[in-house]
Amino acid sequence: MLGLLTNPLKTIHCVDKVKIGIINVSDRASRGEYEDLPGQEVKRLMDLWLQNEWEAVYAVIPDEQPLLEKELKRMADEEACGLIVTTGGTGPAVRDVTPEATIAVCEKLLPGFGEQMRQVSLQYVPTAILSRQTAGIRGRSLIVNLPGKPKSIKENLEAVFPAIPYCIDLIEGPYLVPNEEEMKVFRPKQK
Amino acid sequence: MLGLLTNPLKTIHCVDKVKIGIINVSDRASRGEYEDLPGQEVKRLMDLWLQNEWEAVYAVIPDEQPLLEKELKRMADEEACGLIVTTGGTGPAVRDVTPEATIAVCEKLLPGFGEQMRQVSLQYVPTAILSRQTAGIRGRSLIVNLPGKPKSIKENLEAVFPAIPYCIDLIEGPYLVPNEEEMKVFRPKQK
Amino acid sequence: MLGLLTNPLKTIHCVDKVKIGIINVSDRASRGEYEDLPGQEVKRLMDLWLQNEWEAVYAVIPDEQPLLEKELKRMADEEACGLIVTTGGTGPAVRDVTPEATIAVCEKLLPGFGEQMRQVSLQYVPTAILSRQTAGIRGRSLIVNLPGKPKSIKENLEAVFPAIPYCIDLIEGPYLVPNEEEMKVFRPKQK
Repeated sequence: MLGLLTNPLKTIHCVDKVKIGIINVSDRASRGEYEDLPGQEVKRLMDLWLQNEWEAVYAVIPDEQPLLEKELKRMADEEACGLIVTTGGTGPAVRDVTPEATIAVCEKLLPGFGEQMRQVSLQYVPTAILSRQTAGIRGRSLIVNLPGKPKSIKENLEAVFPAIPYCIDLIEGPYLVPNEEEMKVFRPKQK
Repeated sequence: MLGLLTNPLKTIHCVDKVKIGIINVSDRASRGEYEDLPGQEVKRLMDLWLQNEWEAVYAVIPDEQPLLEKELKRMADEEACGLIVTTGGTGPAVRDVTPEATIAVCEKLLPGFGEQMRQVSLQYVPTAILSRQTAGIRGRSLIVNLPGKPKSIKENLEAVFPAIPYCIDLIEGPYLVPNEEEMKVFRPKQK
Repeated sequence: MLGLLTNPLKTIHCVDKVKIGIINVSDRASRGEYEDLPGQEVKRLMDLWLQNEWEAVYAVIPDEQPLLEKELKRMADEEACGLIVTTGGTGPAVRDVTPEATIAVCEKLLPGFGEQMRQVSLQYVPTAILSRQTAGIRGRSLIVNLPGKPKSIKENLEAVFPAIPYCIDLIEGPYLVPNEEEMKVFRPKQK
């Protein structure tokens, strides 16, 4: 297995275990008013789709932009998570600040993620256009905003995941090994 | 009817009559060189699609960013319009400044509106990609940029309207009651 | 032919020969490590699709934002190129700065170009969402970011080119005359 985990790109950032950040952004979940079902769904999907040994770096925080920015920075800069996903807080309401925090901490934005996730959600509900979810790069971490409902989390993450391992290769993060029976990912052949 | 008009969300902002702002942004229309057909088309569609009693707050202004910003602010902050639509001024020409004014006055942008409207217009004309139309939130008002041609106004507004009443619920604006025979809107079930 | 070349809009900016800027943004190509195949592909397509006599204004530069900004400005302001295309440098890697340079020099952005190009590329590869390519206006020049691979350059430019001549009309640039047998472009009828 170790062979597979070696990043074929020049700079290798991969250590023993891949770290993935999972942040449930929700006033109510942060007060303990309900279980962190969104976070559990992300964990379940990563277990299913990845062959790597991986470790979840977990947080449940209220819809407060400074708190979320701080947590995103910590997971990127201190924990060195190759992938950080947020759930919730992407709508038009006054307390929805997840995209703002994401934009604030990222060096590069990837508008294609939000476009494709809205596109996919539009197949289910016309209110998909109300989601402001985005994605971006901070250092060697890819940050992706997901919706708050477990069903939508799966629909969205399933749509963009095929591009995620190669994206993380390009930013010299950990080399993700997919479980090809459950999730086909795409890596162009190296020149 | 009053029962229907009661907002089921906690904060109720709904008063007797819903106000909708309609701004025709056009140098030529503002000089009286032609009739405000775009504004009339928006009014016709609202009459057709809404059961609410509603009042149009109207303006025809030239393609001047400061004037448009001032009018958008007035309709949002003073008139308390739940929805404000602009027509025209979204192209690449030097006088097209509607998106700039919209971005300047909004606290949150909703990129999904522009994406979906361009997507829909692309079914008719390849020049749809030249439109920079967007949408966003200012306080309790949703602002949506539409094209200038009546035919395109209908195509665009029809595509995004199913998400508009729920969006306005989320920002605690007035509760819009659709005329279901003419326009199906979507509101997810409350948890 | 001269008749065809006359811009029907009021302001005529068209001179004898149309200039098109082609910038290959690539560290490796700029060091001469490989041939400028992206630039040659753009040239081939313009020869095929345009009836105008046209002149390529060429550059191969490294992935350095200040250098690219300078070159974009020069091609727009001094060379008066009606269209400027870049190839490469639009991904998530730390050296990919083409969109940043484009955004920095443009007065108006045209998000519909990036949306449509990603949409088209998604038909071929799921990693299309990693491209941050955009387009925008600087003065009388339209700037369009393309991918770096010749095959993808064709797929992308083919998808957006039908809107390009009319866009350049609207910004009062040179009047492009398509070779209708190879490329159908769209210009709405003037009111």
